[in-house]
Amino acid sequence: MSFPKIGVLGGGQLGRMLGLAGIPLGAKFVFLDSNPLSPAADVGELILGGYDDTTALDKLIDAVDVVTYEFENVPVATAEYVAARKPVWPPPSVLSVAQDRLKEKEFFQSLGIPTAPFYEVNSLEDLHKAVKEIGSQGVLKTRTMGYDGKGQFRIRSESDVDTAWNEIGGVPLIYEGFVNFKRELSILGVRNQKGEVAFYPLVENVHNEGILRLSVAPAKDVDALVQKVASDYSEKVLNAFGYVGVLAIELFDTEDGLVANEMAPRVHNSGHWTIEGSEISQFENHIRAVCDLPLGSTSMVGYAAMLNVIGDLPKLGDLLEVPNTHVHMYAKSEAPRRKLGHVTVRSPGQEALQECLALVRRILVNR
Amino acid sequence: MSFPKIGVLGGGQLGRMLGLAGIPLGAKFVFLDSNPLSPAADVGELILGGYDDTTALDKLIDAVDVVTYEFENVPVATAEYVAARKPVWPPPSVLSVAQDRLKEKEFFQSLGIPTAPFYEVNSLEDLHKAVKEIGSQGVLKTRTMGYDGKGQFRIRSESDVDTAWNEIGGVPLIYEGFVNFKRELSILGVRNQKGEVAFYPLVENVHNEGILRLSVAPAKDVDALVQKVASDYSEKVLNAFGYVGVLAIELFDTEDGLVANEMAPRVHNSGHWTIEGSEISQFENHIRAVCDLPLGSTSMVGYAAMLNVIGDLPKLGDLLEVPNTHVHMYAKSEAPRRKLGHVTVRSPGQEALQECLALVRRILVNR
Repeated sequence: MSFPKIGVLGGGQLGRMLGLAGIPLGAKFVFLDSNPLSPAADVGELILGGYDDTTALDKLIDAVDVVTYEFENVPVATAEYVAARKPVWPPPSVLSVAQDRLKEKEFFQSLGIPTAPFYEVNSLEDLHKAVKEIGSQGVLKTRTMGYDGKGQFRIRSESDVDTAWNEIGGVPLIYEGFVNFKRELSILGVRNQKGEVAFYPLVENVHNEGILRLSVAPAKDVDALVQKVASDYSEKVLNAFGYVGVLAIELFDTEDGLVANEMAPRVHNSGHWTIEGSEISQFENHIRAVCDLPLGSTSMVGYAAMLNVIGDLPKLGDLLEVPNTHVHMYAKSEAPRRKLGHVTVRSPGQEALQECLALVRRILVNR
Repeated sequence: MSFPKIGVLGGGQLGRMLGLAGIPLGAKFVFLDSNPLSPAADVGELILGGYDDTTALDKLIDAVDVVTYEFENVPVATAEYVAARKPVWPPPSVLSVAQDRLKEKEFFQSLGIPTAPFYEVNSLEDLHKAVKEIGSQGVLKTRTMGYDGKGQFRIRSESDVDTAWNEIGGVPLIYEGFVNFKRELSILGVRNQKGEVAFYPLVENVHNEGILRLSVAPAKDVDALVQKVASDYSEKVLNAFGYVGVLAIELFDTEDGLVANEMAPRVHNSGHWTIEGSEISQFENHIRAVCDLPLGSTSMVGYAAMLNVIGDLPKLGDLLEVPNTHVHMYAKSEAPRRKLGHVTVRSPGQEALQECLALVRRILVNR
């Protein structure tokens, strides 16, 4: 047994947690990132360089057996450059779809997966037409490079159109009809090289200011049929791409059923609870998939909830006092809106889970 | 919050697992080891050097805030050299006791902890006297540097005495009366800088050829009183040293109660199951203790059993197919009697545990 050496494009906290999950299997990691203080540097070699730095990319390619990525905005050209010499999973083809909100929605629709109504917007005229067609409740978004709520403008009436255009116009846009949803869910699926698939239970997510704050697993009151629908959507996407690795799809839970919002072709913040809350975490399953190994069980171990640590560092000792609580810091310095870590509460019972969650929340707020 | 940087004397698999447990808390690690292929090098900086290499030691001391060790035969002089400039936990004072089987037994007895009858042996005459006093069923052992069954000779009758002496005589020895035990247990305790203590459930251990093969947690049929006795023994030792960190005590389970065999002032192979089988693992609790943080829960998550991977590397894919199974490889190459990894089976039920354990055992044997 000689374990493949894994190259990772991106050296953030997702890379760090991939490393922590892969090292016990015998894996060794090499990360590519332009930030010398990359969180992943604690668990592998860090090659400093941008995604367009072919010298750095060549160094990575030479050092490893297989390459994955932990950042969905890795340029397609970068992924294809690497794929010419070493296997890249998930397949680079998924990037061009996942990076473009228009292509992504068209792709979902082609598989029969419901989405919000949408309209391609390249001019102010397009936007007026879009609002006429879809309605004046919606969100204007940049097609590419949007994350954590950036590049979005909420439209509430026809009179917002000009402001919205002035705010983010001039780049390729998409206008999405507002979806009246009860809550946000996500489904994490994983597929390996043999085509085996597995799905984690649906998770309920709470965002604030466009940033994920809380994930609760399993999402409450999800019947088997809804879980099946979500898993089927995930499986369709996985199979369509001949996908290998973990894929997250964010979903709206509406009166008319699940509606796909967007997908991320990587391990995902809404799956961090799986480290303690699942038999085998999203991180280990991603590594297993990428390394042509059998997938592990996605069954839950008790109930779990995850809170992100955002902007300010909490008092570690206070967090560690809370029962059922597991702390994951990313070795990053404080900055507004920056994800610095996460805290997972896991418990055999719902009541203890809620109590401990309340304690953690208090520590994360009052410092 | 600025997490202390941790120096570790020794870079083996125990250091590797300390790193994997400490990095999520925000810790960074520097290891000192003379082996450039040290398993811990995947999770921190490795300073190459022996325990008597003051240049290497100074480099370590300069780089970190606090120092611990993962090898109980670190020379006392080394630990004291480091302690003159940076805190060292567990306290160096424990090393001189734990490294000498005679001092160790005298120490146990001073605390009222039962041991096998023993006799100091520095000559063939001493050995004859010892056998006369204690009986001809016993084990002659070197007082220092014994591990994994090395430096021991089993005596079954008076006529073995000369052979035993010829085999391992000439260094300070101890003759220990044979203990008629039902099974071997171990108790893992942890104490932090505030003097808080916690204990894991008693574990049952199976050795073969002097090497730990299997640990089952919790040990079967242990009543609350026996657990209490073991925890009390551990607590006495912890408090006697003003100990900080994890301490293992190996115990014989006899008709007359628990008998202490030996102690290890470090995280211990019989506690590897705690990674999945406990709320907070021995590794994380050791880091918490050493870094002046509150201890975490030692409660079990289901039932657990651990098998060591010894000598030969198994087929990883086969192991990963087994339900409830978690694989930990140490990135070491094959060698007879070498610990290359371990596999933990964790399950909510005893039956599934035994089934999966049988599957793992088959894979570890038939390769």
